[in-house]
Amino acid sequence: MLLPTVDDVIATNRLLTEHVVRTPLSEFPALNAAVGGRVLLKLETFQRTSSFKFRGAMSRLLRLDADERAAGVVAWSSGNHAQAVATAGRLLGMATTIVMPADAPRVKLARTRAAGATVITYDRASESREEISFDIARRQGLVVVPSYDDRWVMAGQGSVGMEILAQCAELGVEARDLLIPCSGGGLTAGCALAMDSADNPPRIWTVEPAGFDDHARSWLSGKREHIEGGAANLCDALLAPTPGELTFAINQPRVTGGFTVTDDEVRRALRFAFDELRLVVEPGGAAALAALLAGRHDGSAEVTVAIISGGNVDPELFAALLVER
Amino acid sequence: MLLPTVDDVIATNRLLTEHVVRTPLSEFPALNAAVGGRVLLKLETFQRTSSFKFRGAMSRLLRLDADERAAGVVAWSSGNHAQAVATAGRLLGMATTIVMPADAPRVKLARTRAAGATVITYDRASESREEISFDIARRQGLVVVPSYDDRWVMAGQGSVGMEILAQCAELGVEARDLLIPCSGGGLTAGCALAMDSADNPPRIWTVEPAGFDDHARSWLSGKREHIEGGAANLCDALLAPTPGELTFAINQPRVTGGFTVTDDEVRRALRFAFDELRLVVEPGGAAALAALLAGRHDGSAEVTVAIISGGNVDPELFAALLVER
Repeated sequence: MLLPTVDDVIATNRLLTEHVVRTPLSEFPALNAAVGGRVLLKLETFQRTSSFKFRGAMSRLLRLDADERAAGVVAWSSGNHAQAVATAGRLLGMATTIVMPADAPRVKLARTRAAGATVITYDRASESREEISFDIARRQGLVVVPSYDDRWVMAGQGSVGMEILAQCAELGVEARDLLIPCSGGGLTAGCALAMDSADNPPRIWTVEPAGFDDHARSWLSGKREHIEGGAANLCDALLAPTPGELTFAINQPRVTGGFTVTDDEVRRALRFAFDELRLVVEPGGAAALAALLAGRHDGSAEVTVAIISGGNVDPELFAALLVER
Repeated sequence: MLLPTVDDVIATNRLLTEHVVRTPLSEFPALNAAVGGRVLLKLETFQRTSSFKFRGAMSRLLRLDADERAAGVVAWSSGNHAQAVATAGRLLGMATTIVMPADAPRVKLARTRAAGATVITYDRASESREEISFDIARRQGLVVVPSYDDRWVMAGQGSVGMEILAQCAELGVEARDLLIPCSGGGLTAGCALAMDSADNPPRIWTVEPAGFDDHARSWLSGKREHIEGGAANLCDALLAPTPGELTFAINQPRVTGGFTVTDDEVRRALRFAFDELRLVVEPGGAAALAALLAGRHDGSAEVTVAIISGGNVDPELFAALLVER
C-alpha cells in the first residue's frame, strides 16, 4: 500500500495553490467567550463546493496522466466527495461519473448533477456502491477516485493543515490542539502529515458522531474497529463504519484521541454558528465545533484550532433547526 | 460642524486595532461566476455584534473623557447601532441606555438587553426617538452617541475602508469599485475618507432599498433629498429618510453614484449567500451583494469590493426565506 509522505503533502499544497480557495482561519469573540479560551476556526465552508473534499479530489485528478484524463473518472459518495470530484472534473475538462445513494441530501444530488457529472443512484440498504463503481470503472476504463483511502486524496486534504500552519504563523500564534471532524480519516491523515512539518505540532483529535465512533474506539484498541449497523444520524457526511486502511496507518501513531458528539450537540452547534458566527454549517461539518461547545475539550489555556469541514446542508433541514425551540 | 478628516480615520483605525475584529476580505468562485467578474466581499458579519456598527460605537466611546465615561451614554437605533453601543459600553465598563422601536427585530432587542444595556422602547408611529433620547441625556447627564452624524463614529466606520485597502494590497489587487450598503451614510463617509489615503482610490457607490433611495437621489440633485412616508421594507437597517448632514458633506464630492435594490432582489441575495457562500446575512447587509447579482453594476472588467455590512436577521424570517420557492 502506498502511503503519502509529509513531502507529498508539501508538494501537493503548492500544486493546489492556484486551484483551491485559501480559506480563512478566523477568530470570533463570541466563540472564545462561549468556550472560555482562544479558538481559531478553519472555514472550509468557503472552499469550492463548500467542503474540504474539493482539495483531495483536485489533487487526485491533477496526478492523472493524459490517457486517464481523457477517459474520465468514477467515484462514489453520499455527497461532498461527489460534488468535489464532479467540480474538479469540470474545471479540468474531464468526464465524471458519480455513484450516490438515492436518499442523499437533495442539495448534494442536485449540485453534483449541476457540476456536469453523470449521477447513478443506488439503494443504500440493498446495493453495494463499491461493486457498482468498480463495475463501471472496469467496463468503461475509468480510474476510481476514492474519497479517503488514496495517497493523493490524503495529500490534497493535507493542504488544509499546511494552510493552518502558515496562517497561525502569520497571526503569531501556535496551536496546542487541532480538532477535526472525522469519517474515513482522510482529512485527519492529511492534516496529521502536514503537522509533521511543524516544529511544535499541535495535538490532533478526531470528532465523530455518537454511534459512529469507530475512530475513537480504534485509538483506544490500537486496531481498526467496525461499527455494526449504525443507526440514523444527523451527520450524513460522517457515517463511515470503520477507519480507512491507509488513513489509519497514518493516523494511528499521530492522533492523541477522539471525541464524540450527539445529534443534539450538533444541532446546538449549528444554531450557535447561525446566531453568533453568521455561518451556515452542515451537521458533519460542525462536529468539532460541537465538541468544543459541549465542553468535550478543555481549550481554556491555549489556542485550539477546529476545522469547520463543510456547509452543504438542505435548506429545509436548516430552516427547521431555526424555528424549533 | 466638525467633520472627520482622513487623518482622523487613519488614527482611529490604529486605535481600534485591539478592539475590533479585522474581518475577512474574501473571494468566492461561485460569486465571481454569477457576476462574471472578480468580487471581494468585506465580511462585517464577522465583526463583534455581527455588524460594522461596533467600529463607530467603540471609536466614539474611546474618545470620551473620564467624567463622560463615568456618566454613561444614550443612543437610539432600530438595532445594529443599539447592539454596538451596548457591547462597546460593556467592554469598556460603561453604562448604556438604548432607545429602540418596539417593533425592532426581536433578535436585536434581545441582544441589546443581553449586552447589558437599559432598553427603552417607543412607538415608531407616534413618538420621537430623538426627543426621548435627548430628554434622557439632559436629565441624567449622558452623552448621546449618534449612529452616523458624528466625527468619531464616522472615523470608526472608516476602519472598514482602511482594512480593505490593506487587504487589497496584501492580495496584490487594486479595486476599481467599492459598493456600500447605505442608510444614514456613516459607513460610506468613513470609507470614502479612507479611500482619500489611497494612491488610486476605487469609485464609491451607495446601495439603498428601492423606496429609500434618498442618497441616490441626492447624488443626482446635489442636495439632501428626503423620503416622505417610506413604505415597509425588508431592509430594516437601511430606513434613514435622508442623508446625514455631516455624512453628506463628506460623501457628496466623493461618491460616484447610487444603486437601488428591490425586496425581491435582496431576498435572492440572501438566498445566494446561504446556498453558495454559506453566510448568514441580514437584508440590509446584503444590499451591495444584491446590486451585483441583479446586474446593477458591471463588474466584469475589474475588481469590485462589496461590503456585507451585517448579519442580524431574525431566525424566523431567515427560515421562511429558505423554504419559499
